[in-house]
Amino acid sequence: MKFTIKRDLLMAAVQNVMKAISSRAVIPILSGMKIEASIHGIKLTGSDSDISIESFIPSEENGNVNVENIEPGSIVLQAKYFPDIVRKLPQDTVEFIVDDNHQVQISSGKAEFTLVGQSAEEYPHLPRIEADQSFEMPIPLIKNMIKQTVFAVSTMETRPILTGVNMHLENNVLNFTATDSHRLAMRKTTIEATEVEFHNVVVPGKSLNELSKILDDAEETVEISVTNNQILFRTKHLSFLSRLLDGNYPETSRLIPEEKKTSITVNTKELLNTIDRASLLAREERNNVVKLTTEGNSVVEITSNSPEVGNVHEEIVVESVEGEDLKISFSSKYMMDALKSIEYDEITIDFTGAMRPFVLVPKEDDSILQLILPVRTY
Amino acid sequence: MKFTIKRDLLMAAVQNVMKAISSRAVIPILSGMKIEASIHGIKLTGSDSDISIESFIPSEENGNVNVENIEPGSIVLQAKYFPDIVRKLPQDTVEFIVDDNHQVQISSGKAEFTLVGQSAEEYPHLPRIEADQSFEMPIPLIKNMIKQTVFAVSTMETRPILTGVNMHLENNVLNFTATDSHRLAMRKTTIEATEVEFHNVVVPGKSLNELSKILDDAEETVEISVTNNQILFRTKHLSFLSRLLDGNYPETSRLIPEEKKTSITVNTKELLNTIDRASLLAREERNNVVKLTTEGNSVVEITSNSPEVGNVHEEIVVESVEGEDLKISFSSKYMMDALKSIEYDEITIDFTGAMRPFVLVPKEDDSILQLILPVRTY
Repeated sequence: MKFTIKRDLLMAAVQNVMKAISSRAVIPILSGMKIEASIHGIKLTGSDSDISIESFIPSEENGNVNVENIEPGSIVLQAKYFPDIVRKLPQDTVEFIVDDNHQVQISSGKAEFTLVGQSAEEYPHLPRIEADQSFEMPIPLIKNMIKQTVFAVSTMETRPILTGVNMHLENNVLNFTATDSHRLAMRKTTIEATEVEFHNVVVPGKSLNELSKILDDAEETVEISVTNNQILFRTKHLSFLSRLLDGNYPETSRLIPEEKKTSITVNTKELLNTIDRASLLAREERNNVVKLTTEGNSVVEITSNSPEVGNVHEEIVVESVEGEDLKISFSSKYMMDALKSIEYDEITIDFTGAMRPFVLVPKEDDSILQLILPVRTY
Repeated sequence: MKFTIKRDLLMAAVQNVMKAISSRAVIPILSGMKIEASIHGIKLTGSDSDISIESFIPSEENGNVNVENIEPGSIVLQAKYFPDIVRKLPQDTVEFIVDDNHQVQISSGKAEFTLVGQSAEEYPHLPRIEADQSFEMPIPLIKNMIKQTVFAVSTMETRPILTGVNMHLENNVLNFTATDSHRLAMRKTTIEATEVEFHNVVVPGKSLNELSKILDDAEETVEISVTNNQILFRTKHLSFLSRLLDGNYPETSRLIPEEKKTSITVNTKELLNTIDRASLLAREERNNVVKLTTEGNSVVEITSNSPEVGNVHEEIVVESVEGEDLKISFSSKYMMDALKSIEYDEITIDFTGAMRPFVLVPKEDDSILQLILPVRTY
């Protein structure tokens, strides 16, 4: 096996694939990275038990030669040293030569690394997904949907199913839902031109976070295929395979209140900054609780009190307060997470009393919904 | 006590003073920040047992009003919350009002914090240094001298004196020396127009690191005063007081070899990058040892070998190799630290054999010297 490759392309591919490689891999060979050379290009593979990532560098692309002098073959390299080596090589091209004893010689300019590799035959075969049940969506859209929901997954392993985002595709509407049982985030979008339908596809939050990091906005769309226990995200250069979580995702639609007693419309950023300031003194053991009080029909007061430290008080002039007067306490962290996920200038918050969940939606878009349970304070 | 101050000036001063405040202060009040208002301006003070920092914001400066509506007084505030509060306040000015019960009201725009303060009378009096024995030097110069030496102080408490930088001023030559007994860094400079002389003034490395961070290049010079057990660095807006380390700093001049058997002149950056690459595979338990071998009179070979991982090999064309052939092993970390501290394109390394300390000096400047002990390899 042998090839000469552009260092910057190799570096980018290595960084993507590293996201699937754990230094504490249970199967030792999975702490390595598989490198396969064919006349079509170089494929890198990394995997842990949850995620597998393949990155492909084509030999030629748009008239540019990326890989030269290819003698096909494959090898597994220890992933611990490999990214630093590639990053620090002195020249723009890198030459790989693998001998029959799995010795890998990596050279660039006058720098020459000789690494002990392992046979690629020892590397497990990754599951293959048949892509007949697939649909496409724009990369910026899926990244946005992940960003708007994944922060709300549970970090507790007591209910593992809640550590994932529930995906649901029906009648051309794709829905992402995440909840940790204290708050819920939901985002939907329309997927045209597909017959595909599925529900209860629960993708680990960690997988979606990693996916979001490596999806390149320069590639336009991602193709998504779902099976019973796996989901595959595929772009021109990348395959990202994640296991799905076992179990039934809870029915969440009944959590969303249908009526409202108080409705506030406010500048998102202004409310976010005010909550942020009010949370500064809020005590950590009480989950940074702040209190919101309506004052007439255009002012909202945000307060927080920590007996030994002090208190904060701030008024915001809002666009409107409609309905009953309200005093309600909630976690400043949950509120800030929800506000940060909404990329609109104005939001509406609908309350149905101090003890009931409340709902944030952008004023001009009902495809995003954030729900938060209040905190009982005495 | 009362005053209104520009938020950006307050923020900068708070950040400087925070560098002396430990969240685990042994004396509880030292976890706070002292704020004093006089008609001349606002003084902030922070201190732990080793370092005290005072930052002064004058009421007026260069025709600009920085502080207004001053009613003199003083208070101590919990430093844990204060920097975040100042950073996140919504407006460009901040108003402080302290009542007789040490309640501090901090307001900016519609945000209003009420904090529980403590009487400034409980705050310890900082030692005063008489500045009759002082000299001045340019701020960029002292920052450079710190950078070129402080990395070599010991981090082990077994010989506490070595955790400091030894300062020495004699015949108008100021000398900084640091060593951890495996390597030594030395930098000297001329201080004109002073009669001051001292020796065995050992300043904790941590103090110098903090000093370097807060000295502002926009202020031109720093005034330095030394007593038996303290050193004071003073600029127009800042006082930085550090304790000195007890004990006698070892005599280091005899460590520096007077003869040389091999002398290499090389591009600093090129050698640094090569050593960096060679260290990638070097095993941590062996302190990242790399080997240097001269090849004729214009080539140096850098190699490293880690049996289970692989090996690295790189040749550098150097400006010159003079004297005996040489094979020598050393810590790549020490070598990289030394090379990074030397801001010259070309350096000369003088060796007196594989088992003797070697010396790095810039080709065109003998005011910097870096010494490294080799590692015995078998």
